[in-house]
Amino acid sequence: MVLYLIGLGLADEQDITLKGLRAVQSCSKVYLESYTSILLVDDFKARMEALYGQPVTLAHRETVELEADEILRGAHEGNVAFLVVGDPLSATTHSDLILRARHYQAPGAEAPTPVPVKIIHNASITTALGSSGLAGYNFGQTVSIPFWTDDWRPDSWLARIGENMGLGLHTLCLSDIKVREQSIEDMSRGVLRYQPPRYMLLPQLISQLLAAAREHQVDFLDPERTLAVALCRMGAEESATRRGELVRAGTLAEMLACTEPDEAQRRQDEQDDEAFEEANPTVSEKEMDARREARRVQRAIDFWGEPLHSLV
Amino acid sequence: MVLYLIGLGLADEQDITLKGLRAVQSCSKVYLESYTSILLVDDFKARMEALYGQPVTLAHRETVELEADEILRGAHEGNVAFLVVGDPLSATTHSDLILRARHYQAPGAEAPTPVPVKIIHNASITTALGSSGLAGYNFGQTVSIPFWTDDWRPDSWLARIGENMGLGLHTLCLSDIKVREQSIEDMSRGVLRYQPPRYMLLPQLISQLLAAAREHQVDFLDPERTLAVALCRMGAEESATRRGELVRAGTLAEMLACTEPDEAQRRQDEQDDEAFEEANPTVSEKEMDARREARRVQRAIDFWGEPLHSLV
Repeated sequence: MVLYLIGLGLADEQDITLKGLRAVQSCSKVYLESYTSILLVDDFKARMEALYGQPVTLAHRETVELEADEILRGAHEGNVAFLVVGDPLSATTHSDLILRARHYQAPGAEAPTPVPVKIIHNASITTALGSSGLAGYNFGQTVSIPFWTDDWRPDSWLARIGENMGLGLHTLCLSDIKVREQSIEDMSRGVLRYQPPRYMLLPQLISQLLAAAREHQVDFLDPERTLAVALCRMGAEESATRRGELVRAGTLAEMLACTEPDEAQRRQDEQDDEAFEEANPTVSEKEMDARREARRVQRAIDFWGEPLHSLV
Repeated sequence: MVLYLIGLGLADEQDITLKGLRAVQSCSKVYLESYTSILLVDDFKARMEALYGQPVTLAHRETVELEADEILRGAHEGNVAFLVVGDPLSATTHSDLILRARHYQAPGAEAPTPVPVKIIHNASITTALGSSGLAGYNFGQTVSIPFWTDDWRPDSWLARIGENMGLGLHTLCLSDIKVREQSIEDMSRGVLRYQPPRYMLLPQLISQLLAAAREHQVDFLDPERTLAVALCRMGAEESATRRGELVRAGTLAEMLACTEPDEAQRRQDEQDDEAFEEANPTVSEKEMDARREARRVQRAIDFWGEPLHSLV
């Protein structure tokens, strides 16, 4: 039988293609890959199940990496759908599943029993970036900007942006998403507990770009001169509970200014913090930093909405 | 009302998304853009009309460039769908229509009456290239390789490939398609007559790559060492009359060898040509060249199938 890798497209369950839907409906088992991206609607699982007429199993990283054989055993016996938000091959993660399918050997079989794989492509951010108004031909390599922590600040992407800009090319910068991640503390104590999902927001993405540019003393990223287009939640429709697609152009400084408090607001924030410290005299500086960070994040969410921010 | 720019995806009428289909069905007029790409099925217009339940108007380059106002007048009065194979914004051509929609002024109106535009993205070759097995992150700028003629051999794309390779990046090379083109002779005589559609085939694409590399004496394209993946008709399904998707990797020389005649075949070709010249003593050298070229094209079609060849 067939293992279908099916792209769900950009935003909701209606972005699947007719061909993709027909394939899903031919399957005896349906997995939704749920760690490289997400659909931008509430209750997406229930909506998908209603559309497909069958249950959907969420496949987390550990399912796909550790239980690939179970997925393939299913595909050996009947059709199996492995659904991926965007295009199924935009993330290289899933090449592994394809290679395993080619070399699959069913339990008890004396020779390999390869599972045929069929790809059904769909839109991803690499096609949706056309909505920036920039020409696809003028894009260089794509980079992912990972969350920095206090002691882990990877920035190899800065050189990639520099290479692109040296050739006069745009760069698609994808912001990090963290779904079902464990904290380092929990991992070191052997506690299996997941952190709430985190999506990098544009102000943090831009701040990391500029911080890396300062640290490496490069001149190709300048807050006042470097132009960018923010692409948020491409393809998403506005709903009562969700923000829709947002596209906005400006210099990096202009983008940051969108969520910076004005002078009056800044004074108000300081007064709030002082009042809080007076009311809670034992509060640590670290807790106060977390409080300020939460305020910044909230302003970013208020302005840009959540999640899935990219910059070109 | 709304002007919908809707991506049809890669290959046939079943590659439209559910959202796209719903939008088409809400429209009072449906155009199919038919000059930047094509669907890979026979009778595609009839199949689309059966699926949509309404007539589809083919929009050629001159329709869109000269009669944009008519399209927009329709969208001012009701919903209009403008369908594009692949993603609607992968070709920058259609930005023009979006800009005109923003500045549209209905006949008799005293102020602009902008037409809202909604984009429904879909897969294009820029997502389908994941099927090459190469990582999307490692691609640099995309190039289009145009048909060379005797006196027009544009090759600025060679420098782009060199820039990508200098950074260790892959290049997506798109082959030229010519639909409803006029010959220079007809144009100079004012005759409106279209040439049959032409699709650049892989052997010609590779030959042009290597010829340009020789002329510019660059060392980054070497027939024996440069590896490539041919992507033909991505997403297309095999049918009684059509070849399906074909993906094949090798050096440029290996790719060319796929359609080169062996020694016996070469001798047979020469004998055929000699017999033809004897039977037609007035045949010109130019006609004989055309005969040899037609044979090469036929071999390329026999091996690679037609149309839509790309190389990464």
